[in-house]
Amino acid sequence: MQFHQNGFRTGDPDLFEAARPESQSDKLPAEVDVLIVGCGPAGLTLAAQLAAFPQISTRIVEQKSGPLELGQADGIACRTMEMFQAFGFVERVLREAYWVNETTFWRPDPDRPDEIRRSGRIQDVEDGLSEFPHVILNQARVHEFYLDIMRKSPSRLRPDYSRRVVELSVDREAAIEAPAVTVTLERTDPGHEGERETVRARYVVGCDGARSSVRKALGRELKGDSQNQAWGVMDVLAESDFPDFRLKSLIQSEAEGNIVQIPREGGYLVRLYIELDKLKAGERIASRNITSDHLVAAAQRIFHPHTLDVKEIAWWSVYEIGQRLTDKFDDVDEGEDRLPRVFICGDACHTHSPKAGLGMNVSMQDAFNLGWKLSAVLRGLADPDLLATYSEERQAIAKELIDFDREWVSVLSADDAEKTQDYFVRHGRYTAGTATLYRPSRLTAATPHQDLATGFNVGARFHSAPVIRLGDAKPMELGHAVTADGRFRVFAFSDDGDPTASGSKIAALCGFLAGDPASPLKRHTPNGADIDSVIDVRAVFQHYHRDLNFEAMPALLKPIKGKLALKDYEKMYCPDFRRGDIFDLRGIDRTRGCLVVVRPDQYIGTVLPLDGTADLAAYFKAILRAKD
Amino acid sequence: MQFHQNGFRTGDPDLFEAARPESQSDKLPAEVDVLIVGCGPAGLTLAAQLAAFPQISTRIVEQKSGPLELGQADGIACRTMEMFQAFGFVERVLREAYWVNETTFWRPDPDRPDEIRRSGRIQDVEDGLSEFPHVILNQARVHEFYLDIMRKSPSRLRPDYSRRVVELSVDREAAIEAPAVTVTLERTDPGHEGERETVRARYVVGCDGARSSVRKALGRELKGDSQNQAWGVMDVLAESDFPDFRLKSLIQSEAEGNIVQIPREGGYLVRLYIELDKLKAGERIASRNITSDHLVAAAQRIFHPHTLDVKEIAWWSVYEIGQRLTDKFDDVDEGEDRLPRVFICGDACHTHSPKAGLGMNVSMQDAFNLGWKLSAVLRGLADPDLLATYSEERQAIAKELIDFDREWVSVLSADDAEKTQDYFVRHGRYTAGTATLYRPSRLTAATPHQDLATGFNVGARFHSAPVIRLGDAKPMELGHAVTADGRFRVFAFSDDGDPTASGSKIAALCGFLAGDPASPLKRHTPNGADIDSVIDVRAVFQHYHRDLNFEAMPALLKPIKGKLALKDYEKMYCPDFRRGDIFDLRGIDRTRGCLVVVRPDQYIGTVLPLDGTADLAAYFKAILRAKD
Repeated sequence: MQFHQNGFRTGDPDLFEAARPESQSDKLPAEVDVLIVGCGPAGLTLAAQLAAFPQISTRIVEQKSGPLELGQADGIACRTMEMFQAFGFVERVLREAYWVNETTFWRPDPDRPDEIRRSGRIQDVEDGLSEFPHVILNQARVHEFYLDIMRKSPSRLRPDYSRRVVELSVDREAAIEAPAVTVTLERTDPGHEGERETVRARYVVGCDGARSSVRKALGRELKGDSQNQAWGVMDVLAESDFPDFRLKSLIQSEAEGNIVQIPREGGYLVRLYIELDKLKAGERIASRNITSDHLVAAAQRIFHPHTLDVKEIAWWSVYEIGQRLTDKFDDVDEGEDRLPRVFICGDACHTHSPKAGLGMNVSMQDAFNLGWKLSAVLRGLADPDLLATYSEERQAIAKELIDFDREWVSVLSADDAEKTQDYFVRHGRYTAGTATLYRPSRLTAATPHQDLATGFNVGARFHSAPVIRLGDAKPMELGHAVTADGRFRVFAFSDDGDPTASGSKIAALCGFLAGDPASPLKRHTPNGADIDSVIDVRAVFQHYHRDLNFEAMPALLKPIKGKLALKDYEKMYCPDFRRGDIFDLRGIDRTRGCLVVVRPDQYIGTVLPLDGTADLAAYFKAILRAKD
Repeated sequence: MQFHQNGFRTGDPDLFEAARPESQSDKLPAEVDVLIVGCGPAGLTLAAQLAAFPQISTRIVEQKSGPLELGQADGIACRTMEMFQAFGFVERVLREAYWVNETTFWRPDPDRPDEIRRSGRIQDVEDGLSEFPHVILNQARVHEFYLDIMRKSPSRLRPDYSRRVVELSVDREAAIEAPAVTVTLERTDPGHEGERETVRARYVVGCDGARSSVRKALGRELKGDSQNQAWGVMDVLAESDFPDFRLKSLIQSEAEGNIVQIPREGGYLVRLYIELDKLKAGERIASRNITSDHLVAAAQRIFHPHTLDVKEIAWWSVYEIGQRLTDKFDDVDEGEDRLPRVFICGDACHTHSPKAGLGMNVSMQDAFNLGWKLSAVLRGLADPDLLATYSEERQAIAKELIDFDREWVSVLSADDAEKTQDYFVRHGRYTAGTATLYRPSRLTAATPHQDLATGFNVGARFHSAPVIRLGDAKPMELGHAVTADGRFRVFAFSDDGDPTASGSKIAALCGFLAGDPASPLKRHTPNGADIDSVIDVRAVFQHYHRDLNFEAMPALLKPIKGKLALKDYEKMYCPDFRRGDIFDLRGIDRTRGCLVVVRPDQYIGTVLPLDGTADLAAYFKAILRAKD
């Protein structure tokens, strides 16, 4: 963490100085830059991202009367933990959550088919896939962490609860800077019932779930079909002699159906997904009058010969499995020549079964993708056509998710334990959220130089690795330099030369970046802003860190910043040879080095040679505006 | 973390249910169990410890009008981080603090003696000494973390500010259960100036610093002498071309004096301890009229040829070096046959130079030592004579500290860079706080069985090591099972037999502990309390964790607990072979196994054979009362 840069301040370093003295009014303003509808995981991810920029006026409204207390989603994939790291609260999640370390598989005992027997036990996440584990934590806690960031942000953003969207319209003729979206909201809080407010916004984002009012106002629908499968789910405090009761377990019984058992935070709570009978064509689960007693009885039959003594049911539900997806995640129809004004995120765009544990994760990644783009456009760093890439990138990801979920549910229900375990292992990277790969575009630019860094695939998320920070010899993760601050990063991995030599490739690169009129730093950094405020250049050397002289490094890598003109010591790194050399771990060409460009949402933008300055400039020119 | 044990609860798991509905009044009660005087590191450690027990009525008063905003102490030793882990906030410290990874040594360049040159660079803490780094963080932040624990505790304890101790008297004839200490306090807050309150307490603890009113009321003094050495200290935001500006550095110049440079949290702030001239006999530093300009100029001369451009001074001071200590840390004089009623902790007992970075650390360890003893006595688990061991144990530790500090300061001032580096390295364990060794006593019982666990020395702190938790396969640190909850732990390290066999040593031990009338669990656990509520028994096996069947283990190791009668899955561990086998790391006898008893403050009470049940019972009988 960096703080005190503009002068010493006492107190919580996560508490930013408020950008404006007045506290947020409980009335909505007539005009905002961004109106977010819905305080779920997607809405709060977006709100937390935008709250970091007080120059952007943001409000977030929610139909419920207050924060969620009991959420239904709970699975947090490794990739999501990486994003939580960027937002600054991953330590809290690590401390509270259940860690999914291993997964076991149970099937009918061949000798006594009415009893289950363990058939497999595997590590849940493969080694080295992420520096974070796969964890389980009540969604309400994740919400609280985001709300905490918003409260402490320079914007001091708080949700406006008890607001229902009544109407939404877009003025398609309005200038792009105009607040072209008009939203009418109705209050539902005591004393204000029925009061209407009208807000004009430059952008509106519907994060309002499967029954999204915003999506409906755009005339879009969730398309897809039901698989005629009913499942029950319950969070229970229970006593059992099932030996894997604190391990994630996929249990397939001979005749009583299947259970996906997921232990939860706190050491006692467990979630059970219980397969119920197939539904008849057209039959709805609601017509079955299923009670929690049915679920408990079904679970007890599946666990046989093990006991299940349920002491308390914290929450339960029944649901039908289906996979549904909307065509586009914004208000611009295919073929229409217009820039988007309204977006939808998360469940408003895609719904599916909860069993892959991906819904909340993909929803938050939707918002992380949109957040930096909105912030770049609204801060004047990028043209508004950048926003069209949101639907392009995320709709394809949602399509993959839907397809995966359909297949996974059918594997789980096929009663073939071997196939289940095999499928689970083969798709481990997918469920960890690390397999996401954006297609080639100006944001994830196809490159002939991928061989310079075989472990940093363009379009994939930046895969962190251990390093030692040169300035203070701190062992850390390189990926943790990529925080959720809307900045691009360029990591310059050094060639095998001496970086402090005046003619070194690193010196030449820094010279170009710091001084050449064609430099993207020169071109895109607003006048008066710190040199790293739009594009943050960092270097990773091959040397043992004690062999390099900090002060002999190029000035760009020890920039003077802020009101007090202080030096930033956190731009340079070396391998941590004890934990693994990052050059080996990520397949960096040691002779030539390379540049790895990382987007603000941690995805790899492109890979270029160390001297690929023209291509680097071109990459940024295709995304960012020239400064005014 | 374990929660939901007595039923599902939403919200922050660190926020305990309040034991009483009423919130704390702003008036002091007429009577309390414990009155703590002073909200420094010692007072807050003690308050946080006692706040966990709502059956103990505790108040903490402070002369200042509110929480500290800018503290002077900043060094946090590895041992203190281990304690912060036990209190549950080490993750916050790790995130915010500066990590002292390496220390460098600078001395006059032999060729150009007016310039300094690096003469050494070493790892600050030796490998494997602790699972935590040595860090630097403003004391005010540590206070805030403790205050947060107190606020969220079942006691909802908050300090009473603006209270000055006017008088303190002890009724030496009173029964031991009576509130024999009477304290008169005067309020200093606006609107209440001069109002007096009288509080009668069973115990009073003076954590009120070097000028302690409580110590003075006991008639004790800090004895010792000044070394006639003056030093300045300042926290600055500065720009420098000194290449080790973000590394801890011990700098000795030829003729301009010495600097101890300690970078601080946030990436920019640095603390400089600057040696000033020797004082004449009897001369006081105050008479010198030293200003911050003097300090900056002196620092600039010592840094030569490197620059030091100070942009902002966050805090500065000058001080004389001296080491002072009081004879006893309670109100009972040597030879007096009486039980203590009043205690003093931290700076009230010992003062010394800040440069070993130990003052705050030793003070907090004082309070950690006293805290569990007070809580055991006040909960009726131990007789009040236990409290006499506080002064016995901690006065000896303070004496070592004073001696160390005197020597270290003279080494630093002797201008012998080689000797400085050598001394620093040789005393690394001492400054890390891990060398503390309590002398043999009933609490740290001499044992003929130390060879069963050569890495767990009786009297030393329990040195954590990596393990895999059997129930959920979580990779963790065994030491993190020892939280600040006032409980003793018995770690049973298994022999080489099958622990699930009915005649195994582990089974026999658990059988004794769970069922034998001579068992310390039977003897000392109050009726109706969970079996692990006074003495928490855990086991560590030699096997690969996947080879053991959780449900085949002795019942004591999977106890049924709480209102809902749920099973506790967190009592058994196996080696984490990837990170190192704990049996090798801590020298456990693989053939025989052993028992390691750990006190509530994480120090090792004794080491016994697995079948040493009589000795185990005797150990606890010497400390704890039989239940009523």
